[in-house]
Amino acid sequence: MLAEIITIGDEILIGQIVDTNSAWIAQKLNAIGIRVKQISSVSDDRQHILNALTEAQQRADIILITGGLGPTKDDITKKTLAEYFGVGLIENKEALHNVEKIFRRLRGTFTELLEVNKQQALVPENCEVIINKNGTAPGMWFDHGRKIYVSMPGVPHEMMYMMEDTVIPKLKATLKLPFIIHHTILTAGEGESYLADKIADIEDSLPSFIKLAYLPKLGQVRLRLSAYGDDETVLKDKINEYAAKITERVGNAVIAQEDISIEKAILNFMTENGLTLSTAESCTGGYIAHLITQHPGSSKVFFGGAVSYSYELKESMLGVKNETLWQYGAVSEETVTEMVEGALLNFKSDYAVAVTGIAGPDGGTPDKPVGTVWVGVASADKTVTKRFLFGSKRQQNIERTAIAALNMLNILLKEIKN
Amino acid sequence: MLAEIITIGDEILIGQIVDTNSAWIAQKLNAIGIRVKQISSVSDDRQHILNALTEAQQRADIILITGGLGPTKDDITKKTLAEYFGVGLIENKEALHNVEKIFRRLRGTFTELLEVNKQQALVPENCEVIINKNGTAPGMWFDHGRKIYVSMPGVPHEMMYMMEDTVIPKLKATLKLPFIIHHTILTAGEGESYLADKIADIEDSLPSFIKLAYLPKLGQVRLRLSAYGDDETVLKDKINEYAAKITERVGNAVIAQEDISIEKAILNFMTENGLTLSTAESCTGGYIAHLITQHPGSSKVFFGGAVSYSYELKESMLGVKNETLWQYGAVSEETVTEMVEGALLNFKSDYAVAVTGIAGPDGGTPDKPVGTVWVGVASADKTVTKRFLFGSKRQQNIERTAIAALNMLNILLKEIKN
Repeated sequence: MLAEIITIGDEILIGQIVDTNSAWIAQKLNAIGIRVKQISSVSDDRQHILNALTEAQQRADIILITGGLGPTKDDITKKTLAEYFGVGLIENKEALHNVEKIFRRLRGTFTELLEVNKQQALVPENCEVIINKNGTAPGMWFDHGRKIYVSMPGVPHEMMYMMEDTVIPKLKATLKLPFIIHHTILTAGEGESYLADKIADIEDSLPSFIKLAYLPKLGQVRLRLSAYGDDETVLKDKINEYAAKITERVGNAVIAQEDISIEKAILNFMTENGLTLSTAESCTGGYIAHLITQHPGSSKVFFGGAVSYSYELKESMLGVKNETLWQYGAVSEETVTEMVEGALLNFKSDYAVAVTGIAGPDGGTPDKPVGTVWVGVASADKTVTKRFLFGSKRQQNIERTAIAALNMLNILLKEIKN
Repeated sequence: MLAEIITIGDEILIGQIVDTNSAWIAQKLNAIGIRVKQISSVSDDRQHILNALTEAQQRADIILITGGLGPTKDDITKKTLAEYFGVGLIENKEALHNVEKIFRRLRGTFTELLEVNKQQALVPENCEVIINKNGTAPGMWFDHGRKIYVSMPGVPHEMMYMMEDTVIPKLKATLKLPFIIHHTILTAGEGESYLADKIADIEDSLPSFIKLAYLPKLGQVRLRLSAYGDDETVLKDKINEYAAKITERVGNAVIAQEDISIEKAILNFMTENGLTLSTAESCTGGYIAHLITQHPGSSKVFFGGAVSYSYELKESMLGVKNETLWQYGAVSEETVTEMVEGALLNFKSDYAVAVTGIAGPDGGTPDKPVGTVWVGVASADKTVTKRFLFGSKRQQNIERTAIAALNMLNILLKEIKN
């Protein structure tokens, strides 16, 4: 069973927004055994949308469309779908009732609807309306010529609720779906080609229904095994067998046996072992704390931390000595050591992470160019520090510093196990 | 001049990674007057890549391809391009030299290249090689049948360097390009349909070469005017004229006259006025600090802040009273007031922002359900607090809280102006 995702909106094609909807939808479809054949982003243009629909139905059985359902003039998805199916637009009572309900919630009291808002309840007459709990634009389900078309708003949380509440359950109920199983091995510290060389013979021996992909990202490589077929038990057994072979071969670089982030793997391990963590961030400016705290349950492990951008806050929040800062500079082994040990002492956690560096684009010197970063990790028993030299791009330096710090923390934590 | 972006990789189609490359490329192309007609994401599959190339060259003059250039078996873009152009693969000396250079840099000393690494230097014989300063996979430029094809790695920073260093300059040198000018007005606090209704007559009076788009996102709406044509002066005059009309009509909801984020608008204003800021974050866990510090020059304004996840850190870092926490709870007006005033006092900034809430999915109570958030903003003269009730999704609650807090800070800052 193949799907195609069409995202409609000039804002995607001029790069004003990143299309995060497609990846999210693709994940949800994969989980129920529907493969996405292609993702196409097209403009708010009648002919272009019609062409995209025609192309998509040649490739796929299910066409999921997002975007272009707003109340404004540049949003033309609805009338273009009506044209594509050769039907007219009619007012849908349920959708109109929903528009009124949303407005009542927004404004507190009921106010007369604007004409543009009422028009939100107009839909092609051949559709089944999908109620939008979070907005005024209804979603639409079409059965047409043995294909399924679903049109949803481009606003992510509106689309997400519709998918989870209605579209996924309805697809599962309607279709007979095969199984797809993914198994991801998260590794860090070794490059893609080193790993490929190390497991070449295992890769060559994979059965035809299992594919292996290498997904590198900022110091990490994910090894993803995907098995396709009808017999869930066979797929599970075989994928586990090969995952175990690869894991044994790759050894220490393996961080997790699931498709999770490195900070989530750390949180899982620390939660299981009843350990606590705090942070002291300079150049990452709260990014490490953010990575950790985006995960539910992080408060069991994470006490908090300091974002100590200025010299003064490094002193007052972390107890870094004034003379250390002036003698060695804020970006130095001495400072990061005092930062990480200060965090451990002041915030009373079992482990601490500290980073200080020059994220750029300014602030570099010949001795310490932009991209110079010191990372420290510490427990009551041990402090480890390391210097890194990343590149010239601020956002990348922030991300790479965070990953390097989490990597070092993971290694320090592993010493408990061994 | 029309372009199409093709991103190749199963990891996109199963939703394991979000395609951020396309938006970035589209922005760069737009800035030089090249419109992106379509973005297509296809799988690491020979026939599918061939089809995508054939379709793309029917729609566009320039086809930019990312992904599938890694050293491993699932990466087949290079040989598929050779097949598409009907040519063979040859070893490129410059590319081989670059592979050796990258390995010397990575390993410190020169080690013998693996066969898979040497193969990185094989390219279709009709291409011009684009050297990859950050990786081993070369980029490739093809002139074929009056169309330009460029193939680049999918790793974002490798692609970005190639685009900026080689592809954009070469496109500008090769093509005669029209002008596209965008003007974005950032608004907050009013909905899309309210704005559309308010400026309906201005929108109706727009000349045909100017398009208006509404781009809503989490409590903000961007109004984007785009003008297409040959005469830069006329485009600039007209777009400024209409931007001024819209700004006057929309009034207080306007935050910035450029396509920047709300925190960047705040940073610009605070920098111009020599003002300083600190943060005290509970439920956002460092996200507000991260938003601010991702911008170059933020250290002029931002001293730092506390990520006070635990009760203890709210007390020790911010001076929140123990009895306040136990009497009113961590998520209360009393606590957020002490947090924001504590940040102002302890961190010695002119302004401070504090947030405390229940991000979810757990931790809600009947009185304070998941999504309950208190935000406080303060200067020496004034503290303002406000309660919000967002939804049930953790990530969204974190983002909405941050935007709400920045909005409140912006309003407090505006009082200086008036």
